Amino acid sequence: MSPDTIGVGLVGYAFMGRAHSQAWLASRQFFSPGIRAELTAIAGRDAEAARDVADRFEWRSVRTDWRDLLDDPAIGLIDICTPGDTHAEIAIAALAAGKHVLVEKPMANTLAEAEAMAEAAAAARRTGTRSMVGFTYRRLPAIALAREIVARGGLGRVYSVRGQYLQDWLADPKAPWTWRLDRTAAGSGALGDIGAHVIDLAQYVVGDRITTVSGTLTTAHSQRVDAGGTSRAVTVDDSCDFVARFASGASGSFTATRLATGRKNALRLEVSGENGALAFDLEDMNYLEFYDTSGGPDAGFRRIMVTDPQHPYVGAWWPPGHSLGYAQPFTHQAVDLLNAIADGTDPAPSFEDGLQVQRVLASIETSDRTRSWTTVIEAAEEATP
Amino acid sequence: MSPDTIGVGLVGYAFMGRAHSQAWLASRQFFSPGIRAELTAIAGRDAEAARDVADRFEWRSVRTDWRDLLDDPAIGLIDICTPGDTHAEIAIAALAAGKHVLVEKPMANTLAEAEAMAEAAAAARRTGTRSMVGFTYRRLPAIALAREIVARGGLGRVYSVRGQYLQDWLADPKAPWTWRLDRTAAGSGALGDIGAHVIDLAQYVVGDRITTVSGTLTTAHSQRVDAGGTSRAVTVDDSCDFVARFASGASGSFTATRLATGRKNALRLEVSGENGALAFDLEDMNYLEFYDTSGGPDAGFRRIMVTDPQHPYVGAWWPPGHSLGYAQPFTHQAVDLLNAIADGTDPAPSFEDGLQVQRVLASIETSDRTRSWTTVIEAAEEATP
Amino acid sequence: MSPDTIGVGLVGYAFMGRAHSQAWLASRQFFSPGIRAELTAIAGRDAEAARDVADRFEWRSVRTDWRDLLDDPAIGLIDICTPGDTHAEIAIAALAAGKHVLVEKPMANTLAEAEAMAEAAAAARRTGTRSMVGFTYRRLPAIALAREIVARGGLGRVYSVRGQYLQDWLADPKAPWTWRLDRTAAGSGALGDIGAHVIDLAQYVVGDRITTVSGTLTTAHSQRVDAGGTSRAVTVDDSCDFVARFASGASGSFTATRLATGRKNALRLEVSGENGALAFDLEDMNYLEFYDTSGGPDAGFRRIMVTDPQHPYVGAWWPPGHSLGYAQPFTHQAVDLLNAIADGTDPAPSFEDGLQVQRVLASIETSDRTRSWTTVIEAAEEATP
Amino acid sequence: MSPDTIGVGLVGYAFMGRAHSQAWLASRQFFSPGIRAELTAIAGRDAEAARDVADRFEWRSVRTDWRDLLDDPAIGLIDICTPGDTHAEIAIAALAAGKHVLVEKPMANTLAEAEAMAEAAAAARRTGTRSMVGFTYRRLPAIALAREIVARGGLGRVYSVRGQYLQDWLADPKAPWTWRLDRTAAGSGALGDIGAHVIDLAQYVVGDRITTVSGTLTTAHSQRVDAGGTSRAVTVDDSCDFVARFASGASGSFTATRLATGRKNALRLEVSGENGALAFDLEDMNYLEFYDTSGGPDAGFRRIMVTDPQHPYVGAWWPPGHSLGYAQPFTHQAVDLLNAIADGTDPAPSFEDGLQVQRVLASIETSDRTRSWTTVIEAAEEATP
Repeated sequence: MSPDTIGVGLVGYAFMGRAHSQAWLASRQFFSPGIRAELTAIAGRDAEAARDVADRFEWRSVRTDWRDLLDDPAIGLIDICTPGDTHAEIAIAALAAGKHVLVEKPMANTLAEAEAMAEAAAAARRTGTRSMVGFTYRRLPAIALAREIVARGGLGRVYSVRGQYLQDWLADPKAPWTWRLDRTAAGSGALGDIGAHVIDLAQYVVGDRITTVSGTLTTAHSQRVDAGGTSRAVTVDDSCDFVARFASGASGSFTATRLATGRKNALRLEVSGENGALAFDLEDMNYLEFYDTSGGPDAGFRRIMVTDPQHPYVGAWWPPGHSLGYAQPFTHQAVDLLNAIADGTDPAPSFEDGLQVQRVLASIETSDRTRSWTTVIEAAEEATP
Repeated sequence: MSPDTIGVGLVGYAFMGRAHSQAWLASRQFFSPGIRAELTAIAGRDAEAARDVADRFEWRSVRTDWRDLLDDPAIGLIDICTPGDTHAEIAIAALAAGKHVLVEKPMANTLAEAEAMAEAAAAARRTGTRSMVGFTYRRLPAIALAREIVARGGLGRVYSVRGQYLQDWLADPKAPWTWRLDRTAAGSGALGDIGAHVIDLAQYVVGDRITTVSGTLTTAHSQRVDAGGTSRAVTVDDSCDFVARFASGASGSFTATRLATGRKNALRLEVSGENGALAFDLEDMNYLEFYDTSGGPDAGFRRIMVTDPQHPYVGAWWPPGHSLGYAQPFTHQAVDLLNAIADGTDPAPSFEDGLQVQRVLASIETSDRTRSWTTVIEAAEEATP
Repeated sequence: MSPDTIGVGLVGYAFMGRAHSQAWLASRQFFSPGIRAELTAIAGRDAEAARDVADRFEWRSVRTDWRDLLDDPAIGLIDICTPGDTHAEIAIAALAAGKHVLVEKPMANTLAEAEAMAEAAAAARRTGTRSMVGFTYRRLPAIALAREIVARGGLGRVYSVRGQYLQDWLADPKAPWTWRLDRTAAGSGALGDIGAHVIDLAQYVVGDRITTVSGTLTTAHSQRVDAGGTSRAVTVDDSCDFVARFASGASGSFTATRLATGRKNALRLEVSGENGALAFDLEDMNYLEFYDTSGGPDAGFRRIMVTDPQHPYVGAWWPPGHSLGYAQPFTHQAVDLLNAIADGTDPAPSFEDGLQVQRVLASIETSDRTRSWTTVIEAAEEATP
Repeated sequence: MSPDTIGVGLVGYAFMGRAHSQAWLASRQFFSPGIRAELTAIAGRDAEAARDVADRFEWRSVRTDWRDLLDDPAIGLIDICTPGDTHAEIAIAALAAGKHVLVEKPMANTLAEAEAMAEAAAAARRTGTRSMVGFTYRRLPAIALAREIVARGGLGRVYSVRGQYLQDWLADPKAPWTWRLDRTAAGSGALGDIGAHVIDLAQYVVGDRITTVSGTLTTAHSQRVDAGGTSRAVTVDDSCDFVARFASGASGSFTATRLATGRKNALRLEVSGENGALAFDLEDMNYLEFYDTSGGPDAGFRRIMVTDPQHPYVGAWWPPGHSLGYAQPFTHQAVDLLNAIADGTDPAPSFEDGLQVQRVLASIETSDRTRSWTTVIEAAEEATP
C-alpha cells in the first residue's frame, strides 16, 4: 500500500526555489516518508522563469499569483521561498486557508511580522495545521549528531559557544549593489541573512536560549554601484560581531560577516563543555569534530566522518564515506515535515523558534544603537529551541 | 525551442542504479544539455525491486530482461549498472543494436572482455554510436580543475604521482563475505573496484599512461562468513600496493585497499612537478590543494574551494562555498555524454581508455604472480587517456 | 674580534626562568648579536630551587634578593620572570639603577603600576637605558611574517580581526585552586594572562590600536579546592569574550578562556582585509595561512610553512621544513633586545606598548561591570604598537 | 649527590654537529640523566669552523684530528656527526678504544661497512661499551607514543604501513650540485638519506621487520651545475618508490623523494590495523592521529596533541600545548643514551638495527637493478628493531 500524498505549492523559483524543488523530489526518491509529496504547482511573478523551473522539476502547473495556490484544493502545503518581506503575508494567509506552511529563513524582516506569524501558527496548530521555518542546517547529519551528543550529556555542562558565519562576497569594494543591501527589502544584512543561521544552530545544538547580547554592526562600504552603473546607498550591515549570554549562564561569542576574505560559506560552531567539546564547519560539512575528556592525555579532537548509515539521515543515501552536499539537508527537512504531517505532530523549528531568533537579531540591533547590553525580551520564554 | 530528447534504458537498480537515476533527472533540472534525457525504462531481474526504483525516479516502464531494452525504438542509450561480469555481453549487444552505451566501471572482469568491448566500440563509432566508461570521478570539479592546471603547464614537467584509494570495510575480520569477494563474480578485489579509479584518475590528471608496474596483492582474511553463516573462501585481494612508471618517465606509487582502518573513501592523488604540485582527497571532495613554486619562500599548498561558478561544472549548482556531494559527478557525466551525443563527438573516457586501465590491472596481477616488473602491453598505445 | 658582552641578571627560576635561561644561551649559540649575553646571576627567594636552575644553565652566581643584582656592576640587564605583582617594583628600581630591563607579561597587575613603569621607562630612555615587555609571540616567525605581509599592504584595508586564546586547564571542575585564581596575586584571570597576548598580537600584526570594547567575564566555578584540600574562592575570570573597534574602524571579536575543552594553547588570529586574509594558530606555530585575492577563483588559503631561511629569524636554525618550537621565540626576543642595546635603539614592544594593552584589559573589566561599551583611555594615543 | 659525569667528544661541527651540541647541553638543562654529559672536545678538520662551534656551545677544547679524541682519557663517549663515508672507521676505532659511540644515520655508506660496524659493536658490548645509531625521530614524543599504542595492542593485527619521506630541494632543475649527489661520498641519494629514516620508523613503530622489497629509483636530472659553475654528474637517486612485505605478512608502500614539490620535510607514516590506525606527519610533529574502532560509527581520527606531561619525554619541557621542535628529539636521544650508559644496558637503535636498515636499502637497490622482488638477507634475522 502506497502512502497518502500531499500536494505542494511552491512560491518562488530562484536559487531557493530550485533547492526546494529537488528536495521534494528527493524526499520520495531516497526516503519513504509517511506521506508522499506531489509537485502540484509553482507560483512566481515572472511566468517565463517559473515555467522554466516547472519544466525542469516537473511541477504540474504554474501560477503567477501565489493566492491561486491557496484556492487549490489539491494543495495541502505551501512552501515559501520568496524574499523575506513577503513571508508574513503569504504564511498567514496560507495558514488561514488551512495549508501547512514551510517558510524559508529569515522568517520575517521585522519583529512585528514575526510575532504575527507566530500567533497565526499557534492558532493554526489548534486545528492540526503545521508550520515550520527553514533553518535547514539543523538537518545536516553532522549538526543532528552534535545535537544528539549534547542532548545525551556528552559534553556535560556547557561553558561556552563560539559561532561564526563567514562569507566574503562583499570584501571586494567593487562587488555590486543588490537588493540584499537595502534595508527595506532585506531587513538587515549579514545579521539576518547568516547571523540568523548561526544563532539558530547555536541554540539548537546546545538546547538553550540566548538571553542577553552586546553587539556591533559594521558597514565597510556605505555606497556601492549597482548593475546599471548607479551608486546606491548600502543601508544594512556588512558584518556583525556580538557577545551573548545563554539562559544557563554559558557565554557566547559570535560573528556573522560578508567581509571575511577567503571564507566562502564558513558556518562554524565550537561548543565547550565540562566533559567534551564539539567543532563544526559548514565548509567541511560531512565532518564533526568531537573531543571527549575521557580520553585523558591521549584525548584529541576526533574528526568523525558523518557518513555512516547509523548517523542521522545518512542511511537513505550512499555507502559510508560518500560525501553529502548542500542539497541534502533540504531533502531531510522535507522528509521531516512530511512525517510530522503524517504523524500529526508539530515539526521543529516552529514559528515560535523563528520568532525567538528574530528577537535575538532585534536585540543585537538595539545593542548596537544603545551601545550597551540588551535583554532578549521575555516573551521569548515560550520558545523552545 | 526545446532540445531533442533521447530515451535512456537503465540496466540495474541497486546503489549504482539509483545514483544514475538521479543523475539523468538532474541533468535536465540543473543543466541544459544539447539533448534531453527521458527515463524510458529500467531493467532488472528482480521485478519488485526494479519497480520500486522506477516508482521513486519515475522510470516509465520496467523490464526484467535487459534484452527488451535493445528492442525498444524509444530507447537510444543503454546505461549499464550491473555487476562487472555482465558488462561485456550487454554493452556489445547494445552497441550492435545501435544504442549509445554508458557502462559503469570496472568496464569488464577480464582483459578479453575489455578487448572485445573496445573493438565493439570502435566499430560502433564508425556509425556514430557513442560509448563511455563511468570513471565518474573525472567529473569532480576539483579533478577537472586539476586536469586543467596540469594541461596548461601549471606543474611543468611532472616528476611523480602518489595515489591511494583507502577504504576500511574489510578491516574487521567479521565483515561478512559477499559476491565482491568472489573472483568469478567480481574479477578482482580492491584492485579492480577502487584501484581502477585511482589508475584512471592518475593517468587522466597527468595526461600520461602507466607503462610498467610492480605490485603485490594481499588477502588478509582468506575465509569469511557469509550472511547465511557459512564460511566462504575469499578469492580476491583485500589490498594492492604497486609502483609504476609512466611513459614520460614519471614515477608512481599506488595503494588500493579495503583494509585502511578509519579511511572510508579516501581516494587521494598527489602530483609533483617541476613548477608546482597538486593534492586531492575524495573525503574532502570540494577542495583541491595547489602549490605553485612561483610563490617563492611564501609558497604553500593553497586549499582551493572548488565551488566557484567559474570552476568546471559548478556554475549550474549553488552559490560559491556551497558543497557538492557524491551525486553531482554522476550528473556531470550524464550531461557530458548527452552533449557528446548531441554534438556528434566521442565522449571520454572511451572504451579504449577503459581497456588501457584493464591492462594496467592485469599487469599488476601478472607482476604479483611473477614477482617482477611487468610491461603494460603494447596495444595500450592506442589509448588516449 | 668578538663582540662586547653584557651581564644578565635573571629574577625568577620557575617555568619562565628556565625558558629565558635557555634563550640567553641560545642567543649566542645560534645567533651572533651585536653584544653577547653572559649569564651572570640568578635571583630567587628559594635558594635551593634557584641553585638547581643555576647549575643546569650555568648561571655564575645565585642570589636570594633581586636587589643584589642591581648593585652588581657586572650586570647590565635585568630580566624579570617573577609573578606580575612584583614587576613594577623590580623594573622601576632596575631602570633607576641604569640597568636595561626585560619584563615578562603581563607587564603589571594594575593600570597604576603599568603607568608608573611606562614613566620610568620614558625617563630611562633619555639616558639610553632600554626596556622591553616580553610579548614573546611577536617573535614567532609566522607572526613576524604576518606583520610584514600586512605592513607591505598584502591585505589592503583591514576589515576585521578575530582573535582567540583557548586553553582548557580549568574546564575540569576538579582542577585545583592556585595563586593564578586569586585576584590579588594574579591581577586577573584568562583576561590578563592570555587575553593580553591576543590583544598585543592583534594590534601588532594589524599595526593598529583597539579604541573601544564591550566585553563580559565569566567565572564558571567560583570555588576550587587547593592542593591542601581547602576550598578557596576563585576571584578572577575563567573566560573573557569581547568585541572591539580599532582606530581605523576595523572590527574585532575576541575570546580568551581557560575553559575551551580540548584546546591546549590555541592562540588564533584571523585578519580579513580587502585584498587578502591571514590565519594563524599557535597550536600549529610553524604555519601561516595566507589568502591572496589576486588568485581569483583559484585563490585559497595557502599554508606557508614558515621555516625557510628567508623567513624572519629562521636562517639561524635548521634547514627548511624543520619545525621550531615554543623555546625559539624567547631566543629571538633575547637577540632583538641585545641588538637594540648594541645599536642604541629602542626595542619593541616598549613599556608604553605594554601600558596600552593594560588599558585595553582595564577597559574590558570596566565594560563588564557597566555593561556598556568603554573607551580605551586617551593617553593610549602615545603608544605605538 | 650529583651524578657522575662522562666526557663527550664530538666529531663534526656542521648542521648535525650543532644539533648534537645543543642536545648535550639540554640533556642536563631539562633532564636529570643518570650520568651527566660534559662537552669535553670537538674535532673538525677546519679548525676555524670547529672553534666557532666550540665557542658557541662551550666545548672545552678543539681538535683537528678525531683520533686525538680516542686518546683522551677524559672522553668516554664519541659522537660521530661527519658524512657517512667516515662513520665506519671512526666508530670501529672508538669502540676498540673503549669509548661508547653514538653515530648519525645513515650508519654507513655500504653494507660491508655496516656489517663491520655491527661486528665491532657486538664485540664491544661484551665489555660494556655501548653503541647507538642516531635514528633520532624514534624520540619524537608522537612516535614514541605511536610505538606504545601498537605495542599495547591498540591496533590489533597490523595490516599495512604506508610511509613517505617527502622533500623538494631537488625539484628545481637549477638546484646546485653538492657532494650529497655523488655516490662515492653519499652512498645513495634520497634512499639512504631519508628513506633510511622512514624504514627505521616503520619497523620501529610496528615492531616488525621488512623481509622483501620491490622498488625503483629515479634520477630526474642527471646533471646539475655546482657552486663553481661546472656541470657535474648526479650519481645517486633523487627519488625512490618501493613496496615491501613485513615478516608478519603486513604490506608496505613507501616513497622517499627530494622531488615532492611543496613538501619540505614530510616524513609520514600511516599504520592500519584490525582495531585501529595511526597517522603521523613530521611537518606537524607535535601531533599523532589515532583511530580506534571501538568508537563505532562515531569513531574518527583523533588528533592527539602530544604535549601532555604524561606523554613520552614531554614532562621535562613546557606545560601542555606548548610545541616542541626539531631540536628536542636530539636531546631525548642524548638522555636515553646517557641513561643506558649509567644503567649498564644496551641502548636502541643498536648497530644491528642500523645494519638491518642498511640491508633493506641495499635490497631496494638490487631490486631496482634486477627489476624483481628481492629478499632482505637472512642475517637480518638477528636484528631486533
